[in-house]
Amino acid sequence: MKEEDFLQIIKTIIGDKYIGDDCAYLKDLGIVISQDNLVEDVHFSLKYMTPYDIGYKSAMVNLSDIASSGGIPKYITVGLSLPKHISKEFVKDFYNGLTDALDEVEIIGGDITGAEKIMISVTAIGIDRDRKISSRKNAKTGQVVVTSGPHGSSAGGLKLLQQGEKEKNVLIDAHICPKAQTKFAQKIAENIKEDYAMMDSSDGLADAVFKIAKASKKTLVLDFNKIIFDKELKEQFPKNYKDMILYGGEDYQIISTIPKELADYLNLNIIGKVEDYDNTDVKIINYGERDLNISDLENCYNHFE
Amino acid sequence: MKEEDFLQIIKTIIGDKYIGDDCAYLKDLGIVISQDNLVEDVHFSLKYMTPYDIGYKSAMVNLSDIASSGGIPKYITVGLSLPKHISKEFVKDFYNGLTDALDEVEIIGGDITGAEKIMISVTAIGIDRDRKISSRKNAKTGQVVVTSGPHGSSAGGLKLLQQGEKEKNVLIDAHICPKAQTKFAQKIAENIKEDYAMMDSSDGLADAVFKIAKASKKTLVLDFNKIIFDKELKEQFPKNYKDMILYGGEDYQIISTIPKELADYLNLNIIGKVEDYDNTDVKIINYGERDLNISDLENCYNHFE
Repeated sequence: MKEEDFLQIIKTIIGDKYIGDDCAYLKDLGIVISQDNLVEDVHFSLKYMTPYDIGYKSAMVNLSDIASSGGIPKYITVGLSLPKHISKEFVKDFYNGLTDALDEVEIIGGDITGAEKIMISVTAIGIDRDRKISSRKNAKTGQVVVTSGPHGSSAGGLKLLQQGEKEKNVLIDAHICPKAQTKFAQKIAENIKEDYAMMDSSDGLADAVFKIAKASKKTLVLDFNKIIFDKELKEQFPKNYKDMILYGGEDYQIISTIPKELADYLNLNIIGKVEDYDNTDVKIINYGERDLNISDLENCYNHFE
Repeated sequence: MKEEDFLQIIKTIIGDKYIGDDCAYLKDLGIVISQDNLVEDVHFSLKYMTPYDIGYKSAMVNLSDIASSGGIPKYITVGLSLPKHISKEFVKDFYNGLTDALDEVEIIGGDITGAEKIMISVTAIGIDRDRKISSRKNAKTGQVVVTSGPHGSSAGGLKLLQQGEKEKNVLIDAHICPKAQTKFAQKIAENIKEDYAMMDSSDGLADAVFKIAKASKKTLVLDFNKIIFDKELKEQFPKNYKDMILYGGEDYQIISTIPKELADYLNLNIIGKVEDYDNTDVKIINYGERDLNISDLENCYNHFE
């Protein structure tokens, strides 16, 4: 079964009051909360990542969720399930990676248990003091689409690692040590006056804009020429770089729909706009000889993989 | 490596401000938070438990943590990592078990991913409105030790299941469907006027009183005659029932040290008292021909297993 199918079942049992965004927003407590599971050989491999890297990334993916909801990351708890053969050094390096990613965020507890493979579950808590909380269903016609940085780099880095590349470069760095775009998200959250959509590109740029379009019942039009990517990506993958930019995951950039005036005021990279729904979820112009219309993301993934 | 060794390493890296109790208490947000990982074939087996049971227990162990801190359980998030062969029915039954355990607690989100074995991580959030939050380091000389119910039943139930017992009985029920003792804990939390120790017996009665004694630097004296256990336990395990009562885990009863007046007022089962430290962490009188002194729990476990 696929995640989407599972989510459908869960929705029928518990409702969808809180399901749909990367974080749950608990208005009564003034907090946003997010949880992510990272499983060995599903989300990371000890072949390509050190214990430090794994710790760093475990914290970072959750901080990215909090940031992209408009919250200020404050605390995390860490549930760690480890095989018996794991050494003291692993745990030390893992926690050093965690703490280096956390900045002013505090680790406040969690759980340690046994397991056959490494399983990490991090829960992050953010506060929403004096700011609007985003939701992917809030894109409004007339808003522009902005992003915080290059797309496709992490997918390119993973591919290089899988091909046996040992030397670090900008793509491999993007895969191993992605940075939560907290400052970018906070600039928007602090200045926005109206409802807005914001999420991170953990599952890829196309996935993010598609989910915002679907949830908001709008058509998002992106200009491929405006999307930033690393030069290295095109050099290394001249045939595939466009697919990697659109469908590659784990760049953890922020995608947001905000008023054009705010994007200009903050000097942000505008890559598209929100229009009334016209039977296509996402349109990508300047993509190639023909514009790309995405109304079924599943097919695009199959193409990419 | 053992959990305790890992915890030592973690403490040297992140400090021990929040480590030591089942929940972290975030005073600035007015919440308590707890996270538990449950791993297939480590914490549960599909041989003995249905998906419904697993869902029920996943919620329950976390509600027990919140209750035993003195908080009111309010929200949970669920990180679920599942092998590909898992069916829709599993997820449906799992969530039905979860929701049945939750009462008025809401599921507010989480994560679903792949894995080789089932891995569940539940984070629970409670509020502490108008109540004192407990800590296991707060036992005070003169307080009495109270518990919420029978000990050893879950260990007995697990043993019966492992021996091939198919029919349900009170012991097997205690293992499969333990109940978080929320009401018991809340009665104490609502009425207590001074600092107090409280925790659940997830790792056994001896473990709980030992941890409270250690953290509080006190000697806890238990009267074995006062400890409640199911008649069935003695009948099924005439040779081992005493060990099961003391060292068997997963009963999720509440152990607390409170003033005698409050215990009498609330009509609670008193099983011992807190004394100034006299070189033994836990003394158990009326245990057998000789009193039992516990200053090294590790040795007791080795005896039990």
